[in-house]
Amino acid sequence: MSNCLFCKIVKGEVPCSKIYEDDDVLAFMDLYPINKGHVLVIPKKHAENIFDIEEKELDKVMRVVKKLSSAVKKSVKAGGISICQSNGKDGEQEIMHIHFHIIPRFGEDHLASWGHKEYKKGEMDEYKSKIISCL
Amino acid sequence: MSNCLFCKIVKGEVPCSKIYEDDDVLAFMDLYPINKGHVLVIPKKHAENIFDIEEKELDKVMRVVKKLSSAVKKSVKAGGISICQSNGKDGEQEIMHIHFHIIPRFGEDHLASWGHKEYKKGEMDEYKSKIISCL
Repeated sequence: MSNCLFCKIVKGEVPCSKIYEDDDVLAFMDLYPINKGHVLVIPKKHAENIFDIEEKELDKVMRVVKKLSSAVKKSVKAGGISICQSNGKDGEQEIMHIHFHIIPRFGEDHLASWGHKEYKKGEMDEYKSKIISCL
Repeated sequence: MSNCLFCKIVKGEVPCSKIYEDDDVLAFMDLYPINKGHVLVIPKKHAENIFDIEEKELDKVMRVVKKLSSAVKKSVKAGGISICQSNGKDGEQEIMHIHFHIIPRFGEDHLASWGHKEYKKGEMDEYKSKIISCL
């Protein structure tokens, strides 16, 4: 996609701080880290989100996410790793080329919790039925 | 794992509000939803986290995550979907059986942002080198 920042990074038209590259997948440092050591993993082939990425591309990306999660954890001595992937502007996706965040986590990092909603009686079953009807 | 809640759900020893099941993967409603319609996807075969799940199991789980993300978005008319997966207690993992959260998102849901850290000059390159050395 000619206007896509991550496609430009893939093509080398925009620089990145590269961590890993193979024929299909690229990983680089996030310039605006949630915690230091935050890495992004993307497929080279443009796909906007989880809905339109091909399954075989998703497999390749996730194998790199798995491999890099271990490397990030070990290298920065993190206690844990959060893997996050956002879809759609309402899902806080900013770059419209699918990317997985690998975020090192520490017991004392105090990242805000999202909290929980509560279902009314019978309401969860209604949601369940609606979701199943869309499968 | 005999003491694992999600293994008990897989075996039918503990009930769940099931959305999807095949030979290898199970998906069910999260009882404590970040937003209503929040679904969890797990491999039936026990793995604690992204570090120890087998690649082929991860492929299977992610294909269901992809399929269900579309169904959740459509069914609850969400604007977006957040996919999250936590590893380790410091990563806020509560059940030690790997699970992917599919969370419907809405423009007005006001979930807290995690904010960003700032690298000092040269610091990102140091992190990059440390991560690469652990690959």
